[in-house]
This record gives sequence, structure tokens and C-alpha cells, in this order.
Amino acid sequence: MSLSVDLNSDMGEGFGAYRMGDDAAMLSIVSSANIACGLHAGDPEIMAQTFALAKEKGVAVGAHPGFPDLWGFGRRNIPFSAGEIERLVAYQVGSAQALATYVGHPITHVKAHGALGNLTQQDESVARAVNNAIKAVDPKLVCLTIALGHQERLAREMGLACRSEIFADRAYTDEGFLVHRSKSGAVIHDAAAAAERVVRMVRNGAIETITGRAIVTPIDSICVHSDTPSAVGIAARVRAGLEDAGITIRNFLR
Amino acid sequence: MSLSVDLNSDMGEGFGAYRMGDDAAMLSIVSSANIACGLHAGDPEIMAQTFALAKEKGVAVGAHPGFPDLWGFGRRNIPFSAGEIERLVAYQVGSAQALATYVGHPITHVKAHGALGNLTQQDESVARAVNNAIKAVDPKLVCLTIALGHQERLAREMGLACRSEIFADRAYTDEGFLVHRSKSGAVIHDAAAAAERVVRMVRNGAIETITGRAIVTPIDSICVHSDTPSAVGIAARVRAGLEDAGITIRNFLR
Amino acid sequence: MSLSVDLNSDMGEGFGAYRMGDDAAMLSIVSSANIACGLHAGDPEIMAQTFALAKEKGVAVGAHPGFPDLWGFGRRNIPFSAGEIERLVAYQVGSAQALATYVGHPITHVKAHGALGNLTQQDESVARAVNNAIKAVDPKLVCLTIALGHQERLAREMGLACRSEIFADRAYTDEGFLVHRSKSGAVIHDAAAAAERVVRMVRNGAIETITGRAIVTPIDSICVHSDTPSAVGIAARVRAGLEDAGITIRNFLR
Amino acid sequence: MSLSVDLNSDMGEGFGAYRMGDDAAMLSIVSSANIACGLHAGDPEIMAQTFALAKEKGVAVGAHPGFPDLWGFGRRNIPFSAGEIERLVAYQVGSAQALATYVGHPITHVKAHGALGNLTQQDESVARAVNNAIKAVDPKLVCLTIALGHQERLAREMGLACRSEIFADRAYTDEGFLVHRSKSGAVIHDAAAAAERVVRMVRNGAIETITGRAIVTPIDSICVHSDTPSAVGIAARVRAGLEDAGITIRNFLR
Repeated sequence: MSLSVDLNSDMGEGFGAYRMGDDAAMLSIVSSANIACGLHAGDPEIMAQTFALAKEKGVAVGAHPGFPDLWGFGRRNIPFSAGEIERLVAYQVGSAQALATYVGHPITHVKAHGALGNLTQQDESVARAVNNAIKAVDPKLVCLTIALGHQERLAREMGLACRSEIFADRAYTDEGFLVHRSKSGAVIHDAAAAAERVVRMVRNGAIETITGRAIVTPIDSICVHSDTPSAVGIAARVRAGLEDAGITIRNFLR
Repeated sequence: MSLSVDLNSDMGEGFGAYRMGDDAAMLSIVSSANIACGLHAGDPEIMAQTFALAKEKGVAVGAHPGFPDLWGFGRRNIPFSAGEIERLVAYQVGSAQALATYVGHPITHVKAHGALGNLTQQDESVARAVNNAIKAVDPKLVCLTIALGHQERLAREMGLACRSEIFADRAYTDEGFLVHRSKSGAVIHDAAAAAERVVRMVRNGAIETITGRAIVTPIDSICVHSDTPSAVGIAARVRAGLEDAGITIRNFLR
Repeated sequence: MSLSVDLNSDMGEGFGAYRMGDDAAMLSIVSSANIACGLHAGDPEIMAQTFALAKEKGVAVGAHPGFPDLWGFGRRNIPFSAGEIERLVAYQVGSAQALATYVGHPITHVKAHGALGNLTQQDESVARAVNNAIKAVDPKLVCLTIALGHQERLAREMGLACRSEIFADRAYTDEGFLVHRSKSGAVIHDAAAAAERVVRMVRNGAIETITGRAIVTPIDSICVHSDTPSAVGIAARVRAGLEDAGITIRNFLR
Repeated sequence: MSLSVDLNSDMGEGFGAYRMGDDAAMLSIVSSANIACGLHAGDPEIMAQTFALAKEKGVAVGAHPGFPDLWGFGRRNIPFSAGEIERLVAYQVGSAQALATYVGHPITHVKAHGALGNLTQQDESVARAVNNAIKAVDPKLVCLTIALGHQERLAREMGLACRSEIFADRAYTDEGFLVHRSKSGAVIHDAAAAAERVVRMVRNGAIETITGRAIVTPIDSICVHSDTPSAVGIAARVRAGLEDAGITIRNFLR
């Protein structure tokens, strides 16, 4: 029996004349891409171009909805009720469906962005709101969720397909949360160390915490960042590490 | 044999705390509503509320895409290429599909807003772009077009369902264009006169021009404005006039 | 000796084609107007028109900076650091100075809007940030502050001119805060009752709380709302009540 | 007698998390910086940071107003009347004045951005509108204008200080306009050739056209671009070329 895992990254996060990250390089590495939908980043041109490039490279695509906060790049908690979040997510999933269909490469998953994604892990009502939106708009879409968070559990309860991700370069607390960026050791800057750790976690089917404990949980996807100068190097190293260990990189759909 | 015609109006054109027009009153009068999609007006909350209210009132709904120009309310020609217009329209149709599906009242048509709508009448490449977007995203959607414009003819050539509208309160030139608002007689302010003229045009199957000529053309829908103080009064009078003349108000779907 | 007090209201809070409140009517009632600066509401056209109308009516004008949140009309706490708030306020004060100077009616005060204003009462660092911005941009501008809040005290410590306002139609807790809108009695809907209460507070030089206690504090201005259907009626009644009681309506400058 | 000339570049053109160009590098090369004011690019944080960095480097600063078009980076002609352009420019000049004053390095000039700048060369009413705004807000500000354009002539007629710029890397027609980018030879990609041509033009006090003719006109400043990958290299080469030729780089103020 052979192991396989998905490798995902956020993309299409420019706006107008602005660019963020090297999408073309990342699309040669990952198996799934989460495409911004125009509210925290992205615009219809960038969405269509990124969907088209992903199609060319055989990369599965998903909607990547976030808070309507271009100024803050979707990284700030903007006060919206759970009901408002449902409508915000539905809006963005629809716009991604349309542009992905337009280029002939329909979306197959949804992953919440930035502050909205973090809230799905911490706040059950937000996790439910995102799932409600997906269920109402297209219940066949896969929820790509943060491992051990509320959204994962609720998706299963609600009968939605769910795949869970871990982060390649972020340390975990013993409670399964990300170590805050302000803490020492929170971000793993060494690409080789990140790759080795990812291989161990996929093999063990468990998240490795900063104290060395293991939390057994389904690991369906590895999230690699796309918006830092070293992003492409780390992603390539993680992919190579997984392949060298005999683990196949494969999106959820195959 | 009995005559019938659709009565349509633009709605959901507020933004955040701002409101435009009296949607609840208009939804008791019209048979079809064109809902703004968040780029020239509208936001996910207003879209969902308007779709839900239309469902309650049994009014058919469509996407009402416009230029991304909240400042100008979609009434200005913003420089976009035909290709960019395709993606802008696809984006907005998708967002409307999602929120209409979310409230359980799927959209059945698309009508271009303001400056974008006017361009479809004047510029064949824009008309084709709007139709291309509709065809790519969902070819079952009806194109609600301006009578005698490019979009109507192209929709038929492209195999798309098409229904054509005339304006209840705007005078027409002998070439079938709207008389410019700066010209005397361009806008018909007398509700009774507007209603009588509409009845004549529907009965005759022909647009009546400002010089009194008739241009025979399919008339499937009457557009009534929603964003002026007298809008509700004129719309009600037009509806009453049509019904008094034995013409049934009925959307395209029945 | 005769009593006098300023009467202020927020204005210029439309955007593009959207309108909020009846500024022309309010400008015939108040002695000071706080003009939105384009980030939570307002745009350069509306700003210039409102400054010009205030000039015509002899009403003093101020900048009314808020969070950059058109969607939420500046009523939501958007996460910004104190330093970022300084720059946001400086930006808006500058834009108001320029457009007021452009129409020949320079601004003479600054009042924080909505959520930003509320934070100045609750959070000392926000109050200091707003004052820092005013001091850096133009230390001759008057800080129009919420009575009993941090901004008032800090302005005095910082050597800035300060005038304090109370609300005509809002009840106060015994701690001097506004009773939350969700509580019974929070908003005084009876215009006559609001007017009588305002007269008592100005005469007594004290805020009257919901339990009937009095908190002695300088009362330089009465804030009347402009964005509700009954706003003009209440403002007119408050003005009449004050004048009938022999209290002169007069802005800070005379 | 020694020759001197100003070297200017556009800066602060990021937005939120987005960056455009390498401002720190450019500020070590130029003598004047035109800072975006938040409508086509820039935000209060970026404005304050860029003004502060320019202060540190001893670079003179100006407001760089553009159309409110973040999507199009101010490079598209957005339909505004001349009157509306006056208010748009006044708004932006005010915001720049405030943030530059906030960091202790007041602006001393104004230069229109992108499509707005191009219109000042082609359309006299737009040139007049920009000048009207400057005159109304602060008549001591220098108008930095395109050589041979309407704004230059009108500024002199209106009694405004005016300095005129030429472009280091763009070819000129015999009429003194920029050769359109679509034409062969429009952009000078060779840094050494650009530098040599600039030296000749400054020495001769004349623009050199693509056919080799000379148009005598005041040349007060050289504009170097900041938003292309080769921008820093070209700017450095132009500066070195001027200095090697004994021409001093000096802003207008000294």
C-alpha cells in the first residue's frame, strides 16, 4: 500500500497591477490551489488567469473566500455576524465557480482564507457559517479545513466531504493550535527540517507538537505558503521530501 | 388569444447602510427583478435579502452585472476591454447564482446595468462579451436585452434564449435609440401617458418613436425604473394600464 | 449673564449616488457640522457641496474622520493599532482642510465618527491617537469630544482646545456612558421630552443619568442625529426648546 | 556657471500588503519624490512611511494625485468633469499635506499621476482643473508639469510656480508628445543611452525628438520610473551620467 497526500497553496492574491507571490512557480509544485475571490485579494482577471494556469498544470482548484478587506489582505478579524459570513462565503464561492467554469476548470473545494480561516478553528459559529454556505451553494464541494478545528467535525456532521490540512512550516501547540507567530520556534524557516517533519507527520498520521507529542488525526493535505520570498524554495523542498519518502503528491479528486 | 408581457425593474441597489429605491413596493408590482451584484451597487446581505423578498412575492430574478464603479453607480463608461468585460460579467453572474441558490430562488436571467447595458446597444464587441460570459457560465440563463440592440441579435445567433425590453418612460429616436436625457421630451413624466403608450406598443408589437413612427420588433418586457421618487407610482400605473387593457403581466418562465 | 451652547450634527455622509439624511434641512438648525471625509462615507464632491452649503448657512464646519469602512458606515471596530489610527485621522483631517479651504470655509474642529468616536471614550490609546493626529496636523483645531471620555481629559493635558458634547436623544448610565441601544429607554424618541431634558442639562451644567442622578461636567455642545427619518423633527424641537429657554445656539468660534 | 537639474520619481505606490517598486533604493537616487495619495495607490501608512524615509534621505516631497482607480492603478481615463477633478485633486493634496506635516517633512510640489497627468498635457480643461485645485488649497505649492503641456503654460498665466519635467526613458514626437508605447523606439531600454540623451537635453535646454530635432523648452526635472524591474538601474545610471557631466542633482527648493 502506498501513501499519498495533497499539497495546497493560496494563489491569485494580486489585485489590479499588484502581484503577490509567484503563482506560476507554485503551480508547478502543488496539487491543489486555493484562489482568492476578489474581496480580500484577487479580481476577475487574476482569477481567470490563475484558474487557466492551474488547468494547464493539472492542479485542482478551489474557492478561497476571505473577509472583504483588501486593505488588510483578509488577515484581520472584521466584525461580521455568522449569518453575514454565510452570505460573504456564498458570494465568493459563486464568483469562483463562474470564473473557473468560464475557463473550463471547475472548482472542487473551498478553503477559508486568513482571519476567516483562523476563526473557523476557534469559533464554532464561524465554522458552521462557512459550511452552511458551501452546503447551500454546492454540497458536492469539498471543505478543505484546518486539522483538529471545528469546521472539520461540523462538515462530517453535516454530511459534507471534508479534507484536513496541516501547515508545513508552522509549529503546533499541544492543544493542536498553531504556535503564535510572536513565540520562538513558531515558524520553521529551515526547508529541510520542514520537509522532514512533514514526512514524519504524514507517515505517522499525526501532528507533531512543539513539545514532541503526537496528536493522531487525518492528514489529507499539506499547506505551503506562497507569499514570502522563500515560499517557492520551501514548497519545492517539501514536495521533494515527500516524493523521496515514497509518498505520492495527489489532489483529493483522483 | 391573450397578450402578456413581463414587467422588470432593477433592485438591490443599496450598499451597506445606503438604500436606493423602495424594493419592497416595487416587488409587489413587477414580474421580474434584476439584482445588483456588488460591483456597481449591492452587497451580499442586500443580494440575499432581495432574492428572498422576490421569492416571497413570486417575482423571477436575474443577475444585474455592471462596471465595478460604486462611486459612479455603474453609470459611467469605465475603460475595460471586451475580454475583461466577459470576466467581470461572469464573476457577477456567479455571485448572483450562489446567493439566489442560497435563498432557494435561483436566477433565470441576466441583464446588463447602466453604462454596460447602454454599451451592449452601441458596441457589438461589448454585446458579444456579455453573451459570451452568460454562455460560458450557464447557457440556460435568459439574456434580457435592449430591444433593437446588438445583444439581442447576437444572442439569437449564439443560440442563447433572449427576451427584449422597452422602457416605459423614455422616448425613442427614429433609429430605435433612447432620446438623450438632455433633449426635450426624452423622459415621460406623466404616469398615465406612459401607461397608455406602453399599452399601445405592446398591442402593436412595435416601438413608438418621438416623431410618431412605429418600429416593429419583439417586445417581451417593460422596464420600469426603481430609483426615482416617482418610480413606484409610475410602475403601478403602467401595471394597472396593462391589466386594464387585458394584457397579462407574466415573467418569461411561465 | 446668558447661557449659550453649540448644536452639532454629522453630515455629508452620502457616497456617489447614495444620500444619507437631509443635510440642507439640518444645516438650517445646527450651529456646527461634522463632515465625513471619504473613508466611512463622503466623497470629494459631497464634501465640497456640504462645506459650501454650511458656509452659506453660517454653520461652522469640522472634519469627521472614521474607520475606512464604507460597507459598515464606520460603525464597526476595525482592527487598527493606535499608530495606524493617528495616520488615518491625519489623512482625513487633511482632506477636509483642503476641500473646506477650496470652498472658502475652513474647518475649525475635528470630531471622531461612529466606532472610532466610541473608542475614544473607552480606550485611552485611541483617544490619544486622535489627539496626536490633530496636534500634528493643526494644533489650532478644536477637539469636539464626548463628555466624560478620555479624549476630553487628554486634550486638556496636551494643550489642545476642547469642547465636549452630550447627546440629545440618548440616555446615560450612572457612569456617564450611553445606555446600550439594546436596553429599554436607551433612545429618547419623544422630541419634546428630549428638548426638555437638554434644556435641564445645559442649565444645570450636568448630565442627567437614566436613574435621575446628575454628573456635573462641561457641556459645550448638543449632538443631534441626522440619519434617521425623525432626525430633522427632533433637532428642530431641541433647538426651539433651547431658544424658548433663553439659551443661545452658538458655535465655539464666536 | 554650473548646470543643475531635479530628478523625480513616483513613490509610495503600494496598498495595504501590496508593494510596488523599491522606494528605499529610489530615494537614495532622486532629489524629489511624488507620493501617491490613497486613491489610485497608497494608504495612510505607506504615505507616512514614505514621507518619513524621504525626510531621512533629504529628498523633497510632493503630492501625486490620481484618479480614484486602485483597480487600474490610475492609468485609465475615468470619466470625471473638470470640476470633479478639481475636488479630487484638492482632496488628495490635503491628505498629503497632513501626513507630510505629521512626519515633519511638508510637501512642496504637486504632480498629477498616470492618466490624469497625461490628460493635463492633452486637455486644457483638465490642466486648468489641477492648477485650480493647487491654487485654492495652497498657492505656494510648485506645479510639477509635463514639458510643453497645457498645465505648464496655464500655471504661469495663473501665477503659480511651475517646474517642467522630461522623461529619461521615453522618446518624443516632433510635436513634443511621448511616442506611444506601441510604437518601435518609444521606450529607451538601454540605461547608458538614456543617460547620455538626458545629459544632452539638459545641456541643450531642449527636448530631443525621435527624428533628431530639438525643441527648446525649460527642463527643470528628469522623471525616472520606479515601477519596473530595471527602474533602479536606469535611475542610478541617469544620475551618474548627469553627475559625470558636471550637472548637479538638486531639487527645486534649494
